[in-house]
Amino acid sequence: MPSKPTIPKGTRDFSPEEMIKRDYIFDTIKQIFRLYGYQPIETPAMENLSTLLGKYGEEGDKLLFRILNSGNFLSGITDDELEKRDSTVLSSRFCEKGLRYDLTVPFARYVVQHQHEIVFPFRRYQIQPVWRADRPQKGRYREFFQCDVDVIGSDSLLNEYELVRIIDDVFKRLEIAVVIKINNRKVLSGITEIAGLADRFSDITIAIDKIEKTGIKNAFDELISRGIPKRSIDLLQPVLNLKGSPEEKTNTLEELLSSSVTGLKGVSELKTLFGFIRMDPLDCDIELDLTLARGLDYYTGAIIEVKALDGDIGSLCGGGRYDDLTGIFGLEGVSGVGVSFGADRIYDILISHNQIESHKYKGTEVLVVNFGNEALSYGLRLLAKLHELGISSEIYPDFSKMKKQLSYANTRKIPYVLIAGEDEIRGNEVLVKIMNTGEQKKIRTGDLKSFFSQLSGD
Amino acid sequence: MPSKPTIPKGTRDFSPEEMIKRDYIFDTIKQIFRLYGYQPIETPAMENLSTLLGKYGEEGDKLLFRILNSGNFLSGITDDELEKRDSTVLSSRFCEKGLRYDLTVPFARYVVQHQHEIVFPFRRYQIQPVWRADRPQKGRYREFFQCDVDVIGSDSLLNEYELVRIIDDVFKRLEIAVVIKINNRKVLSGITEIAGLADRFSDITIAIDKIEKTGIKNAFDELISRGIPKRSIDLLQPVLNLKGSPEEKTNTLEELLSSSVTGLKGVSELKTLFGFIRMDPLDCDIELDLTLARGLDYYTGAIIEVKALDGDIGSLCGGGRYDDLTGIFGLEGVSGVGVSFGADRIYDILISHNQIESHKYKGTEVLVVNFGNEALSYGLRLLAKLHELGISSEIYPDFSKMKKQLSYANTRKIPYVLIAGEDEIRGNEVLVKIMNTGEQKKIRTGDLKSFFSQLSGD
Repeated sequence: MPSKPTIPKGTRDFSPEEMIKRDYIFDTIKQIFRLYGYQPIETPAMENLSTLLGKYGEEGDKLLFRILNSGNFLSGITDDELEKRDSTVLSSRFCEKGLRYDLTVPFARYVVQHQHEIVFPFRRYQIQPVWRADRPQKGRYREFFQCDVDVIGSDSLLNEYELVRIIDDVFKRLEIAVVIKINNRKVLSGITEIAGLADRFSDITIAIDKIEKTGIKNAFDELISRGIPKRSIDLLQPVLNLKGSPEEKTNTLEELLSSSVTGLKGVSELKTLFGFIRMDPLDCDIELDLTLARGLDYYTGAIIEVKALDGDIGSLCGGGRYDDLTGIFGLEGVSGVGVSFGADRIYDILISHNQIESHKYKGTEVLVVNFGNEALSYGLRLLAKLHELGISSEIYPDFSKMKKQLSYANTRKIPYVLIAGEDEIRGNEVLVKIMNTGEQKKIRTGDLKSFFSQLSGD
Repeated sequence: MPSKPTIPKGTRDFSPEEMIKRDYIFDTIKQIFRLYGYQPIETPAMENLSTLLGKYGEEGDKLLFRILNSGNFLSGITDDELEKRDSTVLSSRFCEKGLRYDLTVPFARYVVQHQHEIVFPFRRYQIQPVWRADRPQKGRYREFFQCDVDVIGSDSLLNEYELVRIIDDVFKRLEIAVVIKINNRKVLSGITEIAGLADRFSDITIAIDKIEKTGIKNAFDELISRGIPKRSIDLLQPVLNLKGSPEEKTNTLEELLSSSVTGLKGVSELKTLFGFIRMDPLDCDIELDLTLARGLDYYTGAIIEVKALDGDIGSLCGGGRYDDLTGIFGLEGVSGVGVSFGADRIYDILISHNQIESHKYKGTEVLVVNFGNEALSYGLRLLAKLHELGISSEIYPDFSKMKKQLSYANTRKIPYVLIAGEDEIRGNEVLVKIMNTGEQKKIRTGDLKSFFSQLSGD
């Protein structure tokens, strides 16, 4: 006997119960995206590797799933190349395509490719799975869904503000208490500049990104081991540790970064953004977190991350502004900003809080009992009638014992069972069994409509 | 400058306009699946190759997209193996995973893997993309969406009947005129048996499958070239050419196949199925087509295919019964039957008939003009008010010239524009511009709700 089949690690099946709950999350997010005037697009699962490589840092390149070229993927490869056994080189020779790693880079590619059909500023949302060859662990999957919302072709900070409002609306609607953390890449640039580390920006952001996980001491020890002078780190530390309201922090930063043009630009952006936010209070907590860095290479302005106040599940949503992403594909001067909601972590948190009921989609409402032979055609007519009335219903496919059929209805949580044996057929009637009470009512088939519309309260 | 980016051949981007039309198709199909009591599941894009290989015939194996193992995919491969340059062998050594080719095999795998959580008969639907490394051509893509509906764990022919009714409902609702073609693999077995070709079943079905494309003569010439004796073919031909109603055909078949137990079983299944169908007339055309074979290896009973009456776009829907598919994964005695709707071809046909309007989802209804500076906070309050009322709306993100902002509303087909300058702000009012008439109305901000609910006829 074959061993029980499995699926690749880090991937998941979704059962009907899970699907219904996930749909509730997707629908909620989608409704809010639409309320704010964003339009849906979709892109293919596979992109050319030339589109994906180099956009997510060195680490990201390694996490791309590559698709083997179809046909003879060895053709054109010399024996010499094969013998060198360089897996990085050979993977690029064997594979032209990869699975998308996020939705932002495919979106930038989409915008450049379709620039002449698009009205700018272009507001789009996109809800699709992405794939990363990450080590699977709690809350981290190799296939997971992102719900992205971006606007491209406008550098107004109103866009950042609107994204904050969207985040606030989504988590209010889902009833998850979160804090929205905001920072700005230009401010981080300014900070590294005044610490004399402008040329080590990437190392610094990677270290800052680790502070939350490993603590500030470990993160900075690592920087020292990478050759960053102790005195520079002594300059960094107090800035990252700034306390107070966003207003107080930006005021202090303005003084600290007075010698950095980029830094001051970042501070001014933060001031404008928090100015908008103060005008109309949010439901969520919000803070200016100078230790927020976000790993991705393409951010150039605001960066945003959302964490649940309860539980330690990582980021539920994140994003930021990217000024040069379409430039890489040949369209300069088009700035974009967006955030991505992680549907899987949102699902995990709602489940762990026991917060989703399957209220929306009810599943099958009526089971028609199969009496076989002569009675079957009567049963099929009842079923056709129910379908006509728009009532989700099914007939038990086999002529099994009544007990088995009722037990099926019970396990499937089907609330009504229609029974029509000889007696009922003769009287053009049907017995309705109400499963949760066990009550039975005989009604005329002509009264099916009124019976069910009464129940559903229409 | 980099060259304009592209996507892999045979894949597509979907623009907002296309998405809205596609959603209409998916929603229509989903509603009918639910009406018939089917429940949603989803499975991962990647399956282990051991799950996929050998289920789609030799040709199918070649069309699987394989995923290169992550990390050093060469580790464990000997120099000797590399030097042999056997791409089939090496692809299996380099790749453990592949993209799903259809939704039926993953479904069978799902059923076996989750057999203890499932209530049988299990009625599920699944709407997800699948991938095939086929040569792209009109109506054939390398990534396309299937909408599958299957019931597993019941061999009652009522299930086949129900699928026929679902097909009828879907195409009625979508207003596409189609013919549903039905055949039975057991009948095909019987026919090959009486022609003395039982051991050549696979060759015969492949040839029969080609009749529609290449004509009966070419298909049979190919069989002769493959060593099938002419006298066997002379026995096949009249059977495949049978004319008449399904009843007439099954009656003739009953005589012709009287010496084949399997053949007679197939005829009896067809008689039962067409018996059900006669009880309640369909909207679609339906026929018993003895030249319908369907390429997939796993079918064992009824096979079903749906073609549009207009246009030559291939099959819009197809499927059949499979008795042994879960057996391959270790769960014996569970028969299934299902069909798959091809959303992409349905989309193509509706577009070519100019039959979809974007009636459902209206997109942004209101644009708030951005007057910058002082007026901006008033505009943002208007926007917050509209969002609170559930009206899809946006503010123009940049403080651009009025003409530019109006032209954006126009191109995006946004029906209403709100204008609030100094005068309006002073009076706590707003000017509403109705874009299709050019009419302007000044209203009090407190009257926004009644203004828009009047318009939408709530």
